[in-house]
Amino acid sequence: MYDLVIIGYGPGGYSASLLALRKGLNIAIVEESKLGGNCLNRACIPTKYYWTGAKFIEKLDVLSNYGIFIDKNKIDFKQAFEKKNEAIKYLRKSLRQLLKSKKVNVYKGKGKIIDKNKILVVDKDGNQSIVEAKNIIIATGSKPNSVGNLKLDNKYIMSTDFLLEKLDNLPKSVLIVGGGVAGCELGYILNKYGVNVYIVELKDRLLPSRDVSKDISRHLLRKFKKLGIKTFFNTTIEDYKIENGFIDVKLSNGENLKVGKIVLSVGRVPNSDNIDEIGIEKDNKGFIKVNQFLQTNYSNIYAIGDVIKSPMLAYTSSMEGEIAVKNILGEKIQPSYEYIPYAIFSAYEIAYIGLNEETAKEKGINITYGMYSYSFNEKAVDESDTDGFIKLFFDKSDKRFLGGYIMGSFASELMHLLEIALRESYTAEQLHNLIYFHPSITEIIPFASYDVAEGKLF
Amino acid sequence: MYDLVIIGYGPGGYSASLLALRKGLNIAIVEESKLGGNCLNRACIPTKYYWTGAKFIEKLDVLSNYGIFIDKNKIDFKQAFEKKNEAIKYLRKSLRQLLKSKKVNVYKGKGKIIDKNKILVVDKDGNQSIVEAKNIIIATGSKPNSVGNLKLDNKYIMSTDFLLEKLDNLPKSVLIVGGGVAGCELGYILNKYGVNVYIVELKDRLLPSRDVSKDISRHLLRKFKKLGIKTFFNTTIEDYKIENGFIDVKLSNGENLKVGKIVLSVGRVPNSDNIDEIGIEKDNKGFIKVNQFLQTNYSNIYAIGDVIKSPMLAYTSSMEGEIAVKNILGEKIQPSYEYIPYAIFSAYEIAYIGLNEETAKEKGINITYGMYSYSFNEKAVDESDTDGFIKLFFDKSDKRFLGGYIMGSFASELMHLLEIALRESYTAEQLHNLIYFHPSITEIIPFASYDVAEGKLF
Repeated sequence: MYDLVIIGYGPGGYSASLLALRKGLNIAIVEESKLGGNCLNRACIPTKYYWTGAKFIEKLDVLSNYGIFIDKNKIDFKQAFEKKNEAIKYLRKSLRQLLKSKKVNVYKGKGKIIDKNKILVVDKDGNQSIVEAKNIIIATGSKPNSVGNLKLDNKYIMSTDFLLEKLDNLPKSVLIVGGGVAGCELGYILNKYGVNVYIVELKDRLLPSRDVSKDISRHLLRKFKKLGIKTFFNTTIEDYKIENGFIDVKLSNGENLKVGKIVLSVGRVPNSDNIDEIGIEKDNKGFIKVNQFLQTNYSNIYAIGDVIKSPMLAYTSSMEGEIAVKNILGEKIQPSYEYIPYAIFSAYEIAYIGLNEETAKEKGINITYGMYSYSFNEKAVDESDTDGFIKLFFDKSDKRFLGGYIMGSFASELMHLLEIALRESYTAEQLHNLIYFHPSITEIIPFASYDVAEGKLF
Repeated sequence: MYDLVIIGYGPGGYSASLLALRKGLNIAIVEESKLGGNCLNRACIPTKYYWTGAKFIEKLDVLSNYGIFIDKNKIDFKQAFEKKNEAIKYLRKSLRQLLKSKKVNVYKGKGKIIDKNKILVVDKDGNQSIVEAKNIIIATGSKPNSVGNLKLDNKYIMSTDFLLEKLDNLPKSVLIVGGGVAGCELGYILNKYGVNVYIVELKDRLLPSRDVSKDISRHLLRKFKKLGIKTFFNTTIEDYKIENGFIDVKLSNGENLKVGKIVLSVGRVPNSDNIDEIGIEKDNKGFIKVNQFLQTNYSNIYAIGDVIKSPMLAYTSSMEGEIAVKNILGEKIQPSYEYIPYAIFSAYEIAYIGLNEETAKEKGINITYGMYSYSFNEKAVDESDTDGFIKLFFDKSDKRFLGGYIMGSFASELMHLLEIALRESYTAEQLHNLIYFHPSITEIIPFASYDVAEGKLF
């Protein structure tokens, strides 16, 4: 009997295994598909791979600023696809090697909990095995959502998962259904790789999430317009027809589009079907219910990541994975979602944390803010990458940092500093008074804090 | 009479002016040369500009990973030089516009303090004016050092300042005297722009500073060898002769080199000649003496930046500028140099803070450490930029973070997070347990902390 069996080896399962191995637990993995889960194989990692390519394509335009004269011959997505696969294969191999060197058994197949200490694993050929475990972590993740009348065929109509994992050739035009994070990320990438991109969004803006400032949506939309990405808000697909290798789409606003492919980017649902025979409790959307220690209704069975109702992020899954293992080891730790930074890799690198204009108002908190533009930042000028800005929010009375966002290069990396500032309740003055390299992009932070810390310059 | 006159408008003077203006002081500037000082015109900013170009040249080799096929036609330094000048002109213009919009008088000329409240300014045509000031900040910076028998002629033998500000065409070969920060930065840049580079260093390693771990020097040297940069340690120039457009150099190790130019990169000396007639005290190296509040022997006259004996860094000058203004306004603040991060832009982006293997040993502190390689970092793999590593040091007993270094992409930006960790005395566990984006380069930090925080994996 294993000390711990982890079902699903995405970021959550991986993270749980890393800590369990450090602590000397005897563990096994059950994984139905590829090691690394959605994140590595068909979400975060391929997205950032292609995004890097898209940014490089953009940067070709500034090379002459550095005396680098090139002829742009060809943009070949097939080659990017193959090299992307190589990169992911390399990362998967390092997971496999880790498990091998630590002598961790990996049961390939679909796991079903048939007893609070037993998992039935059925592989793709129908072979069955029973794995016994003192503790179980369910980390089976999520799968793409679908919408009403659009049928996924992976030829004309596909999920973002399929696009990121399998698509090796790009059509001339793509209609993306959903202007959320994945839609905005893929929209930008496809645009840069030469595709004519349309985005249809049910709500009235890009990134229509409560935590995303409307300001961010506005700036991103302006950039999309410049890039030639066409957006339709408050709009749905009313009907479609596949004819002569194209999809004729009728939008709810009355317009008609003819596109090569449709990509569905309308959120994800938990991967919790058929996961047990012992009555593990789920909510009406299929999320596994857990208590504050990540335990299901069986105290030795934990659930983490996209399969529970917490932010559907690789890195909160990782946090939950470590916490579940600590709790298995006898601690009583609760995950905290208070200081989560968010990042979006689109036409801008975007990151945010904490409150914004709208959410502060909802909460009745009086805020004051500071801003700074990348165009005043010397490092950004040195890098010919000055399109961006930062906005930071502080409590009006005590000037403590409450949240903020960055649109511009390295936004996601810089956000970690603001995460600590939020955790440590830094005031504008403290944030301003750290020692910052000059020149560095990070200097946008002390300059954005300066007005609040020491009074306005203008 | 002005509330404050600042002599020298580099980063220190600029920073002092920004705070003084926010606080409503009536200020004036005395500047002999260009606004922005050495940093903007002939050091930090042009270095990072050219470094960006060098990195772009390097990155041309990975573009095909993203399906981007290009023909490299030509690397033209002259064009880089001109565009560099445009970028710097743009930044200087923003300084000028700031001063203009705030109606700040700028006295162009050399300033000499002739009375504790009077500065004589002589412009380049010999015109004199007297500027009266309640308080004075001396921020005149530094100038390149020279060595023994090498005579600067700015044709064959030049300072780094001249190279970065004025040189518009590169020779086939360059000998850099001094393997410190500037030597290593320029060596890499010149190499990437096609120059055959030699570095002669008096001591036994690159970056021979006490605070730079020998490990960093070793890794950088290995990379330099790969790039074809030739280094000579424990070596000086014994003699040289200029003949037929080349310099014949005889090294102390007996070797002879024939190079197009020699660049002196042997440190800097304070710009304090002829600065006053009132006996402002200096040390024997010309550094202006200040007390813990940055006051000279005249309590209304402050000195900041390279002209005093503190780290010769743009960003410590800026810190001192703000502190001097605060003290003028009646506060009693002492600059702290405990948490200064350092960065070097060479064949690697390098950054470090706090203790390292050698300095911990000197201090008798027992340390434990954690490391992580960029080659395991998913974002670095996505960016085809996996050559690098991080090493973090912790107190062996309480596991508090004591210092560390990073060699790899974004090292300088990431270092700010470690600066806060050092200020806040974070333990390895605290550092590990922050929430980090996945994938992000910043994730090298929690992974490098993991062994110390939770026990070794292997």
